[in-house]
Amino acid sequence: MFHHVKELQFNARVSKPDPRFARLLLEQFGGPNGELKAAMQYFVQAFGCRKPHPDKYDMLMDIATEEFSHLEIVGATIQMLLTGVNGELKNAADESDLNKMLDGTTAKESYIHDALIDPHFFLVSGGTPTLTDSDGNPWSSTYIMGMGDITVDMRCNIAAEATAKLVYENLMKFTDDVYVKETLRFLMTREVAHLQMFQAALDSVQPNFPPGILQSDPKFSNKYFNMSDGNNFSGPWNEGKSPEMKEEWQVIENPIEHIKETDGLLNEKAKGTDRTDKTVQEVNKALSAERKNEVDKATSPSADGIMSWSDSNSGEKEKKEKKLQ
Amino acid sequence: MFHHVKELQFNARVSKPDPRFARLLLEQFGGPNGELKAAMQYFVQAFGCRKPHPDKYDMLMDIATEEFSHLEIVGATIQMLLTGVNGELKNAADESDLNKMLDGTTAKESYIHDALIDPHFFLVSGGTPTLTDSDGNPWSSTYIMGMGDITVDMRCNIAAEATAKLVYENLMKFTDDVYVKETLRFLMTREVAHLQMFQAALDSVQPNFPPGILQSDPKFSNKYFNMSDGNNFSGPWNEGKSPEMKEEWQVIENPIEHIKETDGLLNEKAKGTDRTDKTVQEVNKALSAERKNEVDKATSPSADGIMSWSDSNSGEKEKKEKKLQ
Amino acid sequence: MFHHVKELQFNARVSKPDPRFARLLLEQFGGPNGELKAAMQYFVQAFGCRKPHPDKYDMLMDIATEEFSHLEIVGATIQMLLTGVNGELKNAADESDLNKMLDGTTAKESYIHDALIDPHFFLVSGGTPTLTDSDGNPWSSTYIMGMGDITVDMRCNIAAEATAKLVYENLMKFTDDVYVKETLRFLMTREVAHLQMFQAALDSVQPNFPPGILQSDPKFSNKYFNMSDGNNFSGPWNEGKSPEMKEEWQVIENPIEHIKETDGLLNEKAKGTDRTDKTVQEVNKALSAERKNEVDKATSPSADGIMSWSDSNSGEKEKKEKKLQ
Amino acid sequence: MFHHVKELQFNARVSKPDPRFARLLLEQFGGPNGELKAAMQYFVQAFGCRKPHPDKYDMLMDIATEEFSHLEIVGATIQMLLTGVNGELKNAADESDLNKMLDGTTAKESYIHDALIDPHFFLVSGGTPTLTDSDGNPWSSTYIMGMGDITVDMRCNIAAEATAKLVYENLMKFTDDVYVKETLRFLMTREVAHLQMFQAALDSVQPNFPPGILQSDPKFSNKYFNMSDGNNFSGPWNEGKSPEMKEEWQVIENPIEHIKETDGLLNEKAKGTDRTDKTVQEVNKALSAERKNEVDKATSPSADGIMSWSDSNSGEKEKKEKKLQ
Amino acid sequence: MFHHVKELQFNARVSKPDPRFARLLLEQFGGPNGELKAAMQYFVQAFGCRKPHPDKYDMLMDIATEEFSHLEIVGATIQMLLTGVNGELKNAADESDLNKMLDGTTAKESYIHDALIDPHFFLVSGGTPTLTDSDGNPWSSTYIMGMGDITVDMRCNIAAEATAKLVYENLMKFTDDVYVKETLRFLMTREVAHLQMFQAALDSVQPNFPPGILQSDPKFSNKYFNMSDGNNFSGPWNEGKSPEMKEEWQVIENPIEHIKETDGLLNEKAKGTDRTDKTVQEVNKALSAERKNEVDKATSPSADGIMSWSDSNSGEKEKKEKKLQ
Amino acid sequence: MFHHVKELQFNARVSKPDPRFARLLLEQFGGPNGELKAAMQYFVQAFGCRKPHPDKYDMLMDIATEEFSHLEIVGATIQMLLTGVNGELKNAADESDLNKMLDGTTAKESYIHDALIDPHFFLVSGGTPTLTDSDGNPWSSTYIMGMGDITVDMRCNIAAEATAKLVYENLMKFTDDVYVKETLRFLMTREVAHLQMFQAALDSVQPNFPPGILQSDPKFSNKYFNMSDGNNFSGPWNEGKSPEMKEEWQVIENPIEHIKETDGLLNEKAKGTDRTDKTVQEVNKALSAERKNEVDKATSPSADGIMSWSDSNSGEKEKKEKKLQ
Repeated sequence: MFHHVKELQFNARVSKPDPRFARLLLEQFGGPNGELKAAMQYFVQAFGCRKPHPDKYDMLMDIATEEFSHLEIVGATIQMLLTGVNGELKNAADESDLNKMLDGTTAKESYIHDALIDPHFFLVSGGTPTLTDSDGNPWSSTYIMGMGDITVDMRCNIAAEATAKLVYENLMKFTDDVYVKETLRFLMTREVAHLQMFQAALDSVQPNFPPGILQSDPKFSNKYFNMSDGNNFSGPWNEGKSPEMKEEWQVIENPIEHIKETDGLLNEKAKGTDRTDKTVQEVNKALSAERKNEVDKATSPSADGIMSWSDSNSGEKEKKEKKLQ
Repeated sequence: MFHHVKELQFNARVSKPDPRFARLLLEQFGGPNGELKAAMQYFVQAFGCRKPHPDKYDMLMDIATEEFSHLEIVGATIQMLLTGVNGELKNAADESDLNKMLDGTTAKESYIHDALIDPHFFLVSGGTPTLTDSDGNPWSSTYIMGMGDITVDMRCNIAAEATAKLVYENLMKFTDDVYVKETLRFLMTREVAHLQMFQAALDSVQPNFPPGILQSDPKFSNKYFNMSDGNNFSGPWNEGKSPEMKEEWQVIENPIEHIKETDGLLNEKAKGTDRTDKTVQEVNKALSAERKNEVDKATSPSADGIMSWSDSNSGEKEKKEKKLQ
Repeated sequence: MFHHVKELQFNARVSKPDPRFARLLLEQFGGPNGELKAAMQYFVQAFGCRKPHPDKYDMLMDIATEEFSHLEIVGATIQMLLTGVNGELKNAADESDLNKMLDGTTAKESYIHDALIDPHFFLVSGGTPTLTDSDGNPWSSTYIMGMGDITVDMRCNIAAEATAKLVYENLMKFTDDVYVKETLRFLMTREVAHLQMFQAALDSVQPNFPPGILQSDPKFSNKYFNMSDGNNFSGPWNEGKSPEMKEEWQVIENPIEHIKETDGLLNEKAKGTDRTDKTVQEVNKALSAERKNEVDKATSPSADGIMSWSDSNSGEKEKKEKKLQ
Repeated sequence: MFHHVKELQFNARVSKPDPRFARLLLEQFGGPNGELKAAMQYFVQAFGCRKPHPDKYDMLMDIATEEFSHLEIVGATIQMLLTGVNGELKNAADESDLNKMLDGTTAKESYIHDALIDPHFFLVSGGTPTLTDSDGNPWSSTYIMGMGDITVDMRCNIAAEATAKLVYENLMKFTDDVYVKETLRFLMTREVAHLQMFQAALDSVQPNFPPGILQSDPKFSNKYFNMSDGNNFSGPWNEGKSPEMKEEWQVIENPIEHIKETDGLLNEKAKGTDRTDKTVQEVNKALSAERKNEVDKATSPSADGIMSWSDSNSGEKEKKEKKLQ
Repeated sequence: MFHHVKELQFNARVSKPDPRFARLLLEQFGGPNGELKAAMQYFVQAFGCRKPHPDKYDMLMDIATEEFSHLEIVGATIQMLLTGVNGELKNAADESDLNKMLDGTTAKESYIHDALIDPHFFLVSGGTPTLTDSDGNPWSSTYIMGMGDITVDMRCNIAAEATAKLVYENLMKFTDDVYVKETLRFLMTREVAHLQMFQAALDSVQPNFPPGILQSDPKFSNKYFNMSDGNNFSGPWNEGKSPEMKEEWQVIENPIEHIKETDGLLNEKAKGTDRTDKTVQEVNKALSAERKNEVDKATSPSADGIMSWSDSNSGEKEKKEKKLQ
Repeated sequence: MFHHVKELQFNARVSKPDPRFARLLLEQFGGPNGELKAAMQYFVQAFGCRKPHPDKYDMLMDIATEEFSHLEIVGATIQMLLTGVNGELKNAADESDLNKMLDGTTAKESYIHDALIDPHFFLVSGGTPTLTDSDGNPWSSTYIMGMGDITVDMRCNIAAEATAKLVYENLMKFTDDVYVKETLRFLMTREVAHLQMFQAALDSVQPNFPPGILQSDPKFSNKYFNMSDGNNFSGPWNEGKSPEMKEEWQVIENPIEHIKETDGLLNEKAKGTDRTDKTVQEVNKALSAERKNEVDKATSPSADGIMSWSDSNSGEKEKKEKKLQ
């Protein structure tokens, strides 16, 4: 269950109205890398962890709830930046007051221009934040990533935090308001903190590479296809050893020829690796059994076959077990 | 700031896995009338009320937070209905166990069929709820309604609660699980409760008709155009008096002819009403002034010109003032 | 079947081109609260009423057809506001005339700026209205609400009319063209008229609360959960009696504690209401039977089992029956 | 202005309910090639033609209005195919009647399965058509094509009619209902009729190639780049003369080499054509002047500078002028 | 398999940065008529042709690959137009350099304004093209047309090339950069070339009218319904003979009356045509057999029942057969 | 420029038609984690790297081009799985052959059922792949991640490869076709290879944490807010040192109280870290200068001020410089 207190997690402040920056700031309210995306991504991922990984569930819900709280901070800041818009719209019958608002200097032309920059604020939301990005695109759950697998989901979350961090960094270029910058800096920093939490969680699962369970095919896991001809550079991504599996990179310099020679890779051979199909199958089986068992045991219903979500005691017990690992 | 406790607001239970009903239940998780829509609609509307209408802000945040908590209940129920899916997917290397799962009777064909019915559960989410409706459409913030005006927003919320209520009513036809029905009934009932809260809030604002501020033009507010020829019925919507403004309905039996006669209504006359352009303008001005004043006064920055969101004392003060009105 | 006459329902006029206001006006052409949304919402709802509620079908088709006619008025106004854009684009080979257009004063810089404000008009539509909102988002049928139930659909329609009314009210702030304002005022007034028609139709169905058929659970229908802590206001939404069901509001001051005490509300008791589970079930059964019967009787096929849509005589007969009720 | 009569343009009939075919038929109700797409495409295009091309406006509005009428036919057919769904949903309290409906043989399992196939019908629309395609995707105005230029728009409309025709052809494979087939055949035939109308309209504009105004660059208009190596076929698209401009096709057998030799085509030469840059510029200027003049003359405001849409006499006059050309 | 060379097909150049035109040019990068749409439309259509129509497959893949190469040209041009944006964003800590960039004259206000015009460039993409149209809408595969039938798909492709051509024509109005215009002219010309290729391919299939297989119903194929009353024009679309089928157009002057008289067209008679239901059925059968046979023969698996895509010899053989036809 | 050869990169094979698995496999053709998403994500990111990071540009274009080639493999497999669908649709006039197709045993009922499972294949695409996910949602460029910064983009790409890998892993559960599995295994393995390439590229940029340039605020970078009450677990994400910055995690056990005490964190103090505001500002400045300089130098136009994309010699030169670093 969620609960709400009226205070913001960070006491956001604003020096004066600025509908233009409000528009830009929408990127983190309803944009693809914004706070709602983060909150919903972790919230949705958490369901799958509830039983098999209560510690990860706890972490995901902690961070999801914090992201909801950040969404509130961003919305509150936008609302304050839009001060004056709603009151002016309420002045539906009389336009004579129009010149007095927005820092005292804004004429009607400027008011209309602001409306053209973000018509939603002036025509639809009445000066309230809208769940869109900074270009007016509605928020969509297609922004959410997650596969129901910790070794994948944590990598998705690291990416989410990295993008969100950079949006805040970019936003700071477009405001001179020291109070707004103060808030942006807090929010930016929290993305850095969360990124590290997800990294730590990923590291705590072993093995975590490759993501998921099935091992890669040794014939193809260390081949680099030179598909883009011209200036061909080398670097650690195609020379030396691969970073995770430590196989020797093999560059296919001329892929078209190679494909024809190998009957479309059907006759490809493994090279620069010790892994074989046999060792791969063994790992696949062992890891399948272990991970399936973990999930099945944790999610099996109680004796009467009935499942319930709020299960008061099991948490503590699992906590102890977890910490032993 | 939001806070979360691990217990659900309603202790949702499930008798046995049922991926098919899980698919249908998505309608209220990520569908256009579902819990996330409700939560976000009220949450977003709340920002605009924070200063000028702290009592409505309080109500909107109470209900928004409850809807988030309902979203969690729906997600938890779907997760329990999907028990077995994730474990089976973890069994990536070995398919021999496939026949034993899901109530002990389901063969591979049935498993594949379930995957075809909702491929997202089996291919993407790993048996975790997805933020889509029951037909797989991603949640979109276009579902959210709100205009930054209480007399409009409360009507939008009444509509939202009415649709959500009916979706729960319909959902009950498709499950026999008494525990699931118990949860659905709780959720359905809360929509009825919320609907009444929004109705009460709407009634507490006077005048609340027409929504917004500007009065309607007396020439056109009580005309009924018979645009669809054939069997023409009459009812309280085109005979007698209009329900809110108590003007006498005037039926234009033959709109095409009427348009030609009145030069496209430019020469239309008011009939069946006492209102005139003059009385309309007077109301417009008075109400504009009142509503604008209310907003401007409440949202004006403090003496130093700085605005902050968390304002510890003002709430109590406003509360008293509000209750006097 | 639809028919079209070349005259507009309201003879829209424009003083001079204004591509910027044309952009804003798109909100009511292809926006979520605009004329197409209204037209399609009522049109789609009408199908379900055709047989069981021919009087509501008649009303919905009358209003839907009027909304299509309003869509045409809005489009015509936008087209006139864009005068000059298409001709200039046709001047594909020669740019020397560019400075002469648009009120005689517009230089190329201004022309380019207009294109940046609404690139669709200049790059894609050739100066013709586009089916987007004022921020360029494509119209989507997710804007449409309706559940195939009159007690829900009329509430959705009231919300739709309320939002559309306010968009017109807001739009008037952004144009000084008296002819355009005249048209906007007509359109705004019709929303007020339609709102009352839907209210009258809703009132004519009894009982219409709760929407749909199933009664709410007496244990939960009058509880108010104080989910947002801080300044807690009271008002008719949480003190006194609920407006529709007249049950006494019960405030749960500390929901977290309450949830824990009642085992997630499984042990909740009804309070402040006379309704019981038994009376609820009785109403549920009686109303189910009545409403199902009404639909089944009206939609049952003729003796030969064949259904056809255009059924010349039945309408008149039903009309008489309806009026008796 | 639109008008509606209760009779359908084609008296659609249905032998018995079939929710599954109803699902498929949605493709033409709210799908990308369906009736709403066609109606809105021609309706929107019509605005731009109103003044400069009143004859094309007349044709576009005739066909747009017919497509709205077809939308109604499709919706009516879906509604009849869904007979029983709404009545059953109204039976909210009692499930005992469930086995008796839908052709007398359908058990609850089948009812649930139908709901899984199209959950929108059963959970949301209450057995009324929904504005989606056959896979549940909401209708979007991105389906609409049109550029405000007759030589382009007519080609878009030909494509639209061709796709719609084929969808009806495909749909006929999935129903045995002779009445439904009769309706589908009528609708399919009308697409063929409309396609020819648009072809005739395109032919009536000269020159109509290339679409728009600017002539193509003689250096590039007849080059064929062999970008996909392997089995290289020849046909009238890369040997002989191009169909519209009658230039000799020039095949670039090895594009990579050719690009390098010509410094990225900067040094490309015209071949197999008589056109030169000079003749191109002459045509560009002449056609620009002609088309711009046509639009500007037709759309110039009346003496008082005011524009109005409904202009009673001009149509007849323009008609005579048009027919002389 | 695709391959890439670093050189562009056309060596695009830019005189100086222009973020505003970059925004407009996005229309052809990620817009509904842009290069990605064209590339993906032809690429997807190609799959269905691979076996039955290897010559059309070859043409579609040639053009699809060229369109990908054009997408790269457009992206490269946008990237050059955005020069300076990324570097400035990297200057995250220091704002003092801001006034020096972008042609030496742009002050911070202008920088912010550019960000408001296209916030994605400045907040999200870091000065890299985004896959949206010029108004920020994300690219969607709903832009793609195609029905798996050559007689339809070629018509869709003609429409696609026509719209793309006109967008380039329009874009040229909004830049003075001679190098950018040079590139736009190349791209525009290629659309004209492709249009003719698709026309030639359509002409090479006989019969290609009506699109698909089934013949139209003689009762309805030459009727023109006068659905839009007022100024009724005539032209080759409703007088004389239809352009493809050469049937005499029959105008229904008063559709409402006509519908009532013919019982919703159920009693309609064929007029102005020699075709009968019998001749229609004969053509339907013969063409069905021929087209089905063509597809089935080409796609039947080899002797061992296994299908593979890369089939080295068959191409050449088919090429010879094809050319004989 | 792109080039295409008719052979697939991997010679995909299929044992027999299977429209149901074809539906599931769409997830990787047009789904959010599929091959088009990957191809377009790397392709779009590449533009920003072209000048400042030619080695990363080379890698991104290599992998993007390989992903396009994988898209082709997936599409080819789907096409083969759909063998029979197109031919049967061509049989538009005669339904008698229907029972003979699809492995010889499928009756019409099954054919219709397949159409209900994926109506797009049967009604719209004519048995050709569609650019949707496995649930019919159209591909959207909102799937693409990227910020124009290598330290962010590589993390996004790692996430993309991880999700794609798992989708292939999951897909293998739903087919028994050994040839299809062989192809899926190849594709899955390539995701693992690419993931490592992106990891290597990320590691080659130093510093790469935090992503972007600005350092985090020491007051907030190591705080863990316990926002979700109940069972509180600890792990490396909230005890010990943070993985990247090696600061000591500080748990805020009771965030609500803490917020109130610190005036909404305005009075928060740094703890468990050596970093100070001063050191942070120094790093910010130094890194800003370095990264800005790198970009500006690389993207500055040549002496004549003109920029061109294809720049034949510089690549080789840069390559040498790069390798020295």
